[in-house]
Amino acid sequence: MVVAKELEEQIVQQGDEVRRLKSDKATSEEVKKEAIDKLLKLKLAYKEATGQDYAPAGGQGGGRQDKKKTEKKEEKKPQQQAAEGEGKKTKLGIEIKKDENYSEWYSQVITKAEMIEYYDVSGCYVLRPWSYAVWEHIQAWFDAGIKKLGVKNCYFPMFVSNAALEREKTHIADFAPEVAWVTRAGSSDLAEPIAIRPTSETVMYPSYRKWVQSHRDLPIKLNQWCNVVRWEFKHPTPFLRTREFLWQEGHTAFSNYEDAEKEVFDILDLYAGVYTELMAVPVIKGRKSEKEKFAGGDFTTTVEAYVPCNGRGIQGATSHHLGQNFSKMFDISYEDPNSKDKLFAYQNSWGLSTRTIGAMIMIHGDDNGLVLPPRVAAVQVIVIPVGITAQTTEAQRDELNNAANEVVKQLMAVEVRAESDLRDNVSPGWKFNHWELKGVPIRIEIGPRDMKNSQVTAVVRFDGEKRAIKSEGLAGEVKSLLDDIHNRMYQKVKSLRDEHLKTTSNLEEFNKLLNDKCIILAPFCGEPSCEDEIKKASTRDEVDGSGQAQMGAKTLCIPLEQPKEALPDKCLLPSCSNKPKFFALFGRSY
Amino acid sequence: MVVAKELEEQIVQQGDEVRRLKSDKATSEEVKKEAIDKLLKLKLAYKEATGQDYAPAGGQGGGRQDKKKTEKKEEKKPQQQAAEGEGKKTKLGIEIKKDENYSEWYSQVITKAEMIEYYDVSGCYVLRPWSYAVWEHIQAWFDAGIKKLGVKNCYFPMFVSNAALEREKTHIADFAPEVAWVTRAGSSDLAEPIAIRPTSETVMYPSYRKWVQSHRDLPIKLNQWCNVVRWEFKHPTPFLRTREFLWQEGHTAFSNYEDAEKEVFDILDLYAGVYTELMAVPVIKGRKSEKEKFAGGDFTTTVEAYVPCNGRGIQGATSHHLGQNFSKMFDISYEDPNSKDKLFAYQNSWGLSTRTIGAMIMIHGDDNGLVLPPRVAAVQVIVIPVGITAQTTEAQRDELNNAANEVVKQLMAVEVRAESDLRDNVSPGWKFNHWELKGVPIRIEIGPRDMKNSQVTAVVRFDGEKRAIKSEGLAGEVKSLLDDIHNRMYQKVKSLRDEHLKTTSNLEEFNKLLNDKCIILAPFCGEPSCEDEIKKASTRDEVDGSGQAQMGAKTLCIPLEQPKEALPDKCLLPSCSNKPKFFALFGRSY
Repeated sequence: MVVAKELEEQIVQQGDEVRRLKSDKATSEEVKKEAIDKLLKLKLAYKEATGQDYAPAGGQGGGRQDKKKTEKKEEKKPQQQAAEGEGKKTKLGIEIKKDENYSEWYSQVITKAEMIEYYDVSGCYVLRPWSYAVWEHIQAWFDAGIKKLGVKNCYFPMFVSNAALEREKTHIADFAPEVAWVTRAGSSDLAEPIAIRPTSETVMYPSYRKWVQSHRDLPIKLNQWCNVVRWEFKHPTPFLRTREFLWQEGHTAFSNYEDAEKEVFDILDLYAGVYTELMAVPVIKGRKSEKEKFAGGDFTTTVEAYVPCNGRGIQGATSHHLGQNFSKMFDISYEDPNSKDKLFAYQNSWGLSTRTIGAMIMIHGDDNGLVLPPRVAAVQVIVIPVGITAQTTEAQRDELNNAANEVVKQLMAVEVRAESDLRDNVSPGWKFNHWELKGVPIRIEIGPRDMKNSQVTAVVRFDGEKRAIKSEGLAGEVKSLLDDIHNRMYQKVKSLRDEHLKTTSNLEEFNKLLNDKCIILAPFCGEPSCEDEIKKASTRDEVDGSGQAQMGAKTLCIPLEQPKEALPDKCLLPSCSNKPKFFALFGRSY
Repeated sequence: MVVAKELEEQIVQQGDEVRRLKSDKATSEEVKKEAIDKLLKLKLAYKEATGQDYAPAGGQGGGRQDKKKTEKKEEKKPQQQAAEGEGKKTKLGIEIKKDENYSEWYSQVITKAEMIEYYDVSGCYVLRPWSYAVWEHIQAWFDAGIKKLGVKNCYFPMFVSNAALEREKTHIADFAPEVAWVTRAGSSDLAEPIAIRPTSETVMYPSYRKWVQSHRDLPIKLNQWCNVVRWEFKHPTPFLRTREFLWQEGHTAFSNYEDAEKEVFDILDLYAGVYTELMAVPVIKGRKSEKEKFAGGDFTTTVEAYVPCNGRGIQGATSHHLGQNFSKMFDISYEDPNSKDKLFAYQNSWGLSTRTIGAMIMIHGDDNGLVLPPRVAAVQVIVIPVGITAQTTEAQRDELNNAANEVVKQLMAVEVRAESDLRDNVSPGWKFNHWELKGVPIRIEIGPRDMKNSQVTAVVRFDGEKRAIKSEGLAGEVKSLLDDIHNRMYQKVKSLRDEHLKTTSNLEEFNKLLNDKCIILAPFCGEPSCEDEIKKASTRDEVDGSGQAQMGAKTLCIPLEQPKEALPDKCLLPSCSNKPKFFALFGRSY
């Protein structure tokens, strides 16, 4: 079905295009309509060619985007003035409720809150300063954490030769279909194609082999912050599934299993901390099932979060124990000082990516836009002068502006990230919407009456709580309010999560719960074949509003902390004759 | 067998070159033959040096390395015990003097000091923690500096479509021959090849276009820390010329020329600061000549350092004013609020790369290895217990070790990066050599006599100065010693630089000075054709020890601070009839 495949590609690209145009405030309705028409025609052609409705599938990027940019260019400029002032207000907001269509909501939030700019290579996105700042806060916190564990940063090349890449077969089998290949430099073909790292086990371990000559050369504890490329053909989603993404990858090697195992969980605790301490997101720590673990490793641990709006689980970060699999393939070995036996290192690898930001957006965002947890917000407090009327004199206005700047100064002195918005071409109401959309945790309003009362008004983004704060001791008060907001955001999500965390041994009930947006603890034998069957049995044929069939459930993890109740002696899958080994956490998942 | 290893590398490189030429239809048979002859000569030299035929290696990729590595490994492992103790001592040191053959010296320093590990993709190298720490210190300092200027960090994709890449013709003409192309993902060919960024002007400016709708959207001040790829075919050198490297690239856009111009120099000052404040390297600030400036920009400013051992200049970092060239190509424009005219943004871009580390190594390193300037050293102070003899009891040894750890604790409390080396399988002498080779600024020795006298002995890496420091007030003393070392290292290099910074208007003298490892201020008209002629006139035909013809001089920069003497009315090049416009700084260059 070459035609179908081609059409599929075109549909995916046109879908991207439509989304991009919708997110671009400068695009005229006419151009949008044209793009949508084109998309519908492609879908029709698909149906004619295949006899079936088009169901979202894969696609791939490229230079295709040029034409549309030129088109857009013609339309853009005339509107620019209108977009600047009050007129922008309605366009500014999120035009759809999170509950109605979360994927459309997500697209709007990430673009309107200026987290993401779409890009003309499919599956690649621009991380704007507003989202990159979140990443910088995660980096700073996690980097300090691993350095305390003795991990050092380094940088390995992003290119990997085919020979090295293929050294570990199980591992590469998982990644090969997604590897991007450089075959040409300037106008010359390379003698041998060179891969771009999808992850760096095969990049780093040949060096580890050289470095390990004796037990004294262990442990090696290295980390790098870098980009990786996985050329996925599934539908891309900013932050959650992108062809290039940023992450850290830690790669460590030990002379004994115990130290390696301990580190796997030390790192897992740090990953949990990124979610609980920074992002105000509760996570469940666990092991991955055999089916879901990292290819080539011995076991994978994970932190799993819950996305209330669609009831899906989302993998937060993974910490793998690789056992001796890679060290045997790459010969990372040394002689036992006594027995002279050849010994192989025990290895771990662990990674946390910019996907964290996507989870944060999905979990905390609301109908008004982004909601940033205070500890990762680029701006924690926005200070806005209010109460300026036609009667306000210039001197009074200056006084208000100065007061706003003074508040910012006080807050910055105690390391609260604060800014004032003193623009005179937009109204306070417009600013409220703007900063709400961008998710700033606290808005401080300061007006003539506030000044008279030596106070300001603070409004909390995530729950709308409004309170007066006395000017005296303001900085300390705001600082503790930020902590308070963090805790309350965490609790809110945790309550929602806990309400949707159910236990059952009955497959029918399991399916019902799944459709009620639950994640479910169920007795499970751990076998990949059984997991496959459960997935099949929980796939929903009917389509929901978005036109998508509902995917089946998979194991999110086998929680480290098991439910207190006794493990039933029957696996969730009625036809399975294996004894269950544990409660596994199942869910639909990203 | 350092010579063999060096030859091996050269053979691999030359092999690459031959393959490249063969695949290039535009290459004449004569050129190909020359390249092949050179390869054969290298192989002959290898045989003479080792008594063996060179074992066929491979192409770019990794395949070739396997055999070599396996061989190495077989001989490697038996040595491992010996290598651990005293026996390693002689192998440990640098085996060649910097003056004798600086390129061989450089290779040894970067590998033996554990800055670099070689890698099986040509032109790519592993930045080990010891060098990456230098980069982290540069990042922290510079990042804080630009944030104070209002610059924000972000991340743009590393992939760029052909269409975007080719938007600015002058610019891309310079980079096209070095662009790496991804043409395949998994086993499917991409519809259109996608380039990997050699720099991000063409990646970022289409977004800038979208973001700039009004003068209120300016300035835009963004920066990213990332990797870039320039697939150069010249001989690669770790840090100095590599196919992938790390850098920061700042991209800013302003509504007026003045602000843009001011920023160019603000950034240049920060770049100068990286060298003078962190790396203890003096630099000369200047503009690049027409011939040497960034393609597509209006003018380029630069900081230029001097490498004493070979008399070459090295470009430290560049800050470009792009004028309106890119904003016109990419339509980064807005309407004048009054006249409604279409106005284009004024843009800058500026970059500093891991090349800084190479400059630092070349400039400060000595016959004993690396010399790290204190402010970028991963470890600033290494504490080594000494005076342990056969008579020393275990209790005494413990006491010494504890005293060493106590010193480390005191130093870390005042944020001095200190470590102790308490290994009991190597002697103090071995440790001295080891940490000297690695360039740690201060070694603190602590022995029984020191303990009795409540003091330690501090030895300064860069000049060998030895002094006793009383235990009381130790931390403060060491802290100020580190600053003192920084200043003295800077002064030492500056003296050497100043001794080799000459002024002349006479081409003959110019050439003589050049061969005496000088950089030279000379009157210059600024014309590219004249610069070409000067380069030709200063190329030395004779070969030096390394078998390379000496390249001609180019302008390093036109110093912002011009010599006080009057500008002669004749350009350096006797045949040039243009009036000189300024003194330009000429030199052989990296």
